[in-house]
Amino acid sequence: MRAVLHHGERDVRVETVPEPVLTEPTDALVRVTLSCICGSDLWPYRRTTPPEEPSRIGHEFLGVVEQVGADVRTLRVGDLVIAPFKHSCGECEFCLRGLQTSCVRGGFYGTPEEAGAGQGEMVRVPNADGTLVVAPVGVDDPRLPALLTLSDVMATGHHAAVAAGVGPGSHVAVIGDGAVGLCGVLAARRLGAERIILLSSHPDRAAIGRTFGATDVVEVRGDAAVERVRAMTDGLGVPHVMECVGMQGSWDTALGIVKDGGRIGYVGVPNGVTEGLALGRIFRRNVTIAGGVAPARAYLPELMADVLDGSLDPSPVFDLELPLEQAPEGYAAMDERRAIKVLLRV
Amino acid sequence: MRAVLHHGERDVRVETVPEPVLTEPTDALVRVTLSCICGSDLWPYRRTTPPEEPSRIGHEFLGVVEQVGADVRTLRVGDLVIAPFKHSCGECEFCLRGLQTSCVRGGFYGTPEEAGAGQGEMVRVPNADGTLVVAPVGVDDPRLPALLTLSDVMATGHHAAVAAGVGPGSHVAVIGDGAVGLCGVLAARRLGAERIILLSSHPDRAAIGRTFGATDVVEVRGDAAVERVRAMTDGLGVPHVMECVGMQGSWDTALGIVKDGGRIGYVGVPNGVTEGLALGRIFRRNVTIAGGVAPARAYLPELMADVLDGSLDPSPVFDLELPLEQAPEGYAAMDERRAIKVLLRV
Repeated sequence: MRAVLHHGERDVRVETVPEPVLTEPTDALVRVTLSCICGSDLWPYRRTTPPEEPSRIGHEFLGVVEQVGADVRTLRVGDLVIAPFKHSCGECEFCLRGLQTSCVRGGFYGTPEEAGAGQGEMVRVPNADGTLVVAPVGVDDPRLPALLTLSDVMATGHHAAVAAGVGPGSHVAVIGDGAVGLCGVLAARRLGAERIILLSSHPDRAAIGRTFGATDVVEVRGDAAVERVRAMTDGLGVPHVMECVGMQGSWDTALGIVKDGGRIGYVGVPNGVTEGLALGRIFRRNVTIAGGVAPARAYLPELMADVLDGSLDPSPVFDLELPLEQAPEGYAAMDERRAIKVLLRV
Repeated sequence: MRAVLHHGERDVRVETVPEPVLTEPTDALVRVTLSCICGSDLWPYRRTTPPEEPSRIGHEFLGVVEQVGADVRTLRVGDLVIAPFKHSCGECEFCLRGLQTSCVRGGFYGTPEEAGAGQGEMVRVPNADGTLVVAPVGVDDPRLPALLTLSDVMATGHHAAVAAGVGPGSHVAVIGDGAVGLCGVLAARRLGAERIILLSSHPDRAAIGRTFGATDVVEVRGDAAVERVRAMTDGLGVPHVMECVGMQGSWDTALGIVKDGGRIGYVGVPNGVTEGLALGRIFRRNVTIAGGVAPARAYLPELMADVLDGSLDPSPVFDLELPLEQAPEGYAAMDERRAIKVLLRV
């Protein structure tokens, strides 16, 4: 079968690899229909040190169940399933509490021993019952791209909003106009936010942000952005800040615009947050920091219901659609910011 | 009048200073009955660079209203009042939301222009109506030391518990066996915690902790403490951690023992947290960080009610009682950890 392999700095290739097989009785094999490239895939892509050997990549996909292990009870061959970006058992304390990302038996796809990752024709999904969510639609349903966003990017934007404490009437700022930040805008609106300030210096992304519910766009960056947001909020800042980048600069902005007593919900993978979070900057101000890696599995059912009834459509974050064979072009487009997020048809 | 002045490293003296006078119509003058020394007073006390000129110190006191400004409406001469460690207007958005520490008109006592601090015979209290809480007791009431703890240390321990999300049935760990940590134990018990693990390597402090409600005491430190707490909690850690120290080591312990998805409520003034908070250590684990400087004014009424009805008594944290004139001995005793917290009778 064909799959994307990461060879080194800015070097991914689509190559022929062995098909995965069932190895545990709780596994399922999923033939991938749609996959996509995540902003976090760009971190290894940009890394100057190559992997020891070419490695599989990708963690967002949906597809059709092709085979199930003997102990799989809730899935049938032919089901169309959405895969959250981590697998989880569904039975441990963390899974039961909705924090499947901390599942004691779970993990990421595509580690060497798991023989598979999302950007390829087939994936072995461990803990299939606990992980996969059946979508009651066919493989030609036009809502598939929207459903695919629930495997990571929309779930992550939603997690930022939940972690930031967004609710009806909230005043919110979203830092980051990548796919996660834009989904964060959508999530904040869905949760009832009244004012949503999107920090975006890219007019095309800001335009999507506005259609997603941003009421204000701040197009400057850094200290100027902090000043602008404070000026827009009586000098006091914003009570709910969604940090969707994970860089030192975005954290500095978050700390600069958050209101005393407010919450920063963060979902940007901390990359380049070299200085750590300066506790001295928040101690006197009682700012709460919440978030982390999104338990997409926990949010999938409620978000899927909204996609299916037509009230939620994050699919505009896919502004480039390519066949799997052209994944290298997709990586380049995202790396060069020519595309927000690339959908891969498999 | 007599007051404590900070002269330099480990050098505080009780000297004669001018009495404060009313300067704003919203001021009150309070003749101090009881004051005390805070762990955070030890930071300037230990600092090797002396202040530019000898400076007033102390921010915890209760006493009797001696004089009120023309605009003061809720206080009368002769009232016995408890002063939270910051003054606040009571009318701004932050005060109305219970975050008086962020009051737009508030501040600390004892800045040069405010001519007064808690360790002295008299204090000018700005924003008197918004700040002072009348205690319906006489100056000889035996509960005065317990009431004094509400001006800071007990309110701060309570804030740690609230920030850590402690509630009925919670499993909690308290890092720090100083007065704040011990009050944190008491606060956790008061909020209904079922299991309270106190990290304390001082048997005398651990003993007070046990009377305050600690169900377990871990007497080792650092990595050994992390290992011990994890072993006590099925390897998963504690969902509610109260960080009551503010040093790099105590933060490392907090991050080491907190359960995935848990909360760290922190109230230790960040001193010596040189590396900042390592977001990389919490991102995958969805740990929430909340807390900061405690809005003692917000908590004072409910905590006072419990002190007055006899259900709350934090006064055992005062294990040394001295007249104001002997404040230097009190500082030395706390600095050398011969005393947990020193009560000053004025």
